[in-house]
Amino acid sequence: MTTPALRGPSGVFSAALTPLDAQLNPDHAAFAEHAKWLLAEGCDGIAMLGTTGEANSFSVAERQALLEATVAAGVAPEKLLPGTGVAAFTETVALTKHALSCGVTTVVMLPPFYYKGVSDDGVFAAYSEILQRIGDSRLRVVLYHIPQMSAVPISHAVIERLLAAFPETIVGIKDSAGELANMEAMVEKFPGFSVLAGADPLLLPLRRKGGAGCITATSNLVARDLAFVYAHADDAAKAAEVDAAQARIVAARNKASKYPQMASLKAMTAHRTGQASWMRLRPPLLPLTEAQAQELAQG
Amino acid sequence: MTTPALRGPSGVFSAALTPLDAQLNPDHAAFAEHAKWLLAEGCDGIAMLGTTGEANSFSVAERQALLEATVAAGVAPEKLLPGTGVAAFTETVALTKHALSCGVTTVVMLPPFYYKGVSDDGVFAAYSEILQRIGDSRLRVVLYHIPQMSAVPISHAVIERLLAAFPETIVGIKDSAGELANMEAMVEKFPGFSVLAGADPLLLPLRRKGGAGCITATSNLVARDLAFVYAHADDAAKAAEVDAAQARIVAARNKASKYPQMASLKAMTAHRTGQASWMRLRPPLLPLTEAQAQELAQG
Repeated sequence: MTTPALRGPSGVFSAALTPLDAQLNPDHAAFAEHAKWLLAEGCDGIAMLGTTGEANSFSVAERQALLEATVAAGVAPEKLLPGTGVAAFTETVALTKHALSCGVTTVVMLPPFYYKGVSDDGVFAAYSEILQRIGDSRLRVVLYHIPQMSAVPISHAVIERLLAAFPETIVGIKDSAGELANMEAMVEKFPGFSVLAGADPLLLPLRRKGGAGCITATSNLVARDLAFVYAHADDAAKAAEVDAAQARIVAARNKASKYPQMASLKAMTAHRTGQASWMRLRPPLLPLTEAQAQELAQG
Repeated sequence: MTTPALRGPSGVFSAALTPLDAQLNPDHAAFAEHAKWLLAEGCDGIAMLGTTGEANSFSVAERQALLEATVAAGVAPEKLLPGTGVAAFTETVALTKHALSCGVTTVVMLPPFYYKGVSDDGVFAAYSEILQRIGDSRLRVVLYHIPQMSAVPISHAVIERLLAAFPETIVGIKDSAGELANMEAMVEKFPGFSVLAGADPLLLPLRRKGGAGCITATSNLVARDLAFVYAHADDAAKAAEVDAAQARIVAARNKASKYPQMASLKAMTAHRTGQASWMRLRPPLLPLTEAQAQELAQG
């Protein structure tokens, strides 16, 4: 492994699902329980309130309440990496300041995502405005590149400018576009910058190229295997075990991809926990049918 | 003209720009002044806080404050059609209820726009959940089809289901995709449903096919011409004047399209009013350069 000292998070972070009560409100108690379970399974932290966590389907107040409840339930805030990037930069500022006030130090930040076809100058200006308004030296930001959802990609040119302007604050990127070559290029180009894979099967190859780890959805099911792969990616003595763990990760991801991924992960978590609040999603996302959920539970 | 009695808004509605002060906050006074000017120019109403109005770059509180200030400044709330659709349905509910509390009756509602590739069932479920939670018989909703920004198109199948489920509430659609054929098809398929063009040059041809009017961006510059075209689209005695007005509309739109449209419209409005607050945009959108703005002012 050739990892230089990373300035940002490293390890396995779960893009945690958010359970919902019958009124489709976040189920705080079930979420905190899940976060603790994920940490016990070997996650290094919980990237809550991201795409997988349906964050953008929650109001600012709902997001803040879930974070507060999770900390109040005993999950250490330094283990939490909430998503705070929304369409309106004033709300991104508010969410990030609130997270800092809860003891969080690292957030995962989407660029503003309503307008499409925006320039690199515009993406840089947005992050710059946000970081200047927050103005808190404690803050560490993981950028969030997920063009298939945000439709606002984060280019290397933007990263370069942000690293020059905010060298202490900009510490990494979650790359959910699924192209290993882009992740490897960032590892190469930006020493010390934490490049985190957004797709579970890519943790292993990225780790072997000096990547920092992953923030992924299937971790809701196979965190233990991901933690093993992370720890032993280059350990020749454990190659067979690593391969077996990687095979389980790929299998879990494939299983969760037959039907819409988030609904599938929720159905499988409902099956594991026996808690109905895991079956629900906020529209426009919809839960699996009973038959689909049973198929996944049995398969 | 074969327009059947429309249940929704008809006429020319301006997708009004939002002026910003030096801190990038909405300039309430300048906005109210602009709204009054647009009405005086012949607009039938102001579709404030839409895509052109940078609504999704403002917080919920900022949106509510601008609406309240506009009504307080003397603009009749029944002339205002604010955008209230955001990514989180609970905030869409809150914004819509707030608009109703201000005396507004008709809103323009985007579907939740963060998740992409959502099903028709999901889009229907989102609107359904929102409308049931609002539960106010006064409300009239114009759907908002702008797939190039929202990336969540509104299909005819969804409209059909919404009309069946909420026949009093769902009264029209703003179609900003720019395809006249789709607008004509909706006029044909959904009698009484207000189909509003989102592109200025399409007001004339759509009106001649029974469309309800338009909600457009160039109206910030040429509302008077749009109002003339709307009123006289089928008036053979005024064909030459209609053609001349249409030519000015097309020219204004083309002029505003050389550089990014919203920045161009703002620069031209700054030139007309002499007010600096029209030059500013919230990132990720950026203002024109001084040279670009001067070019538009002179051209």
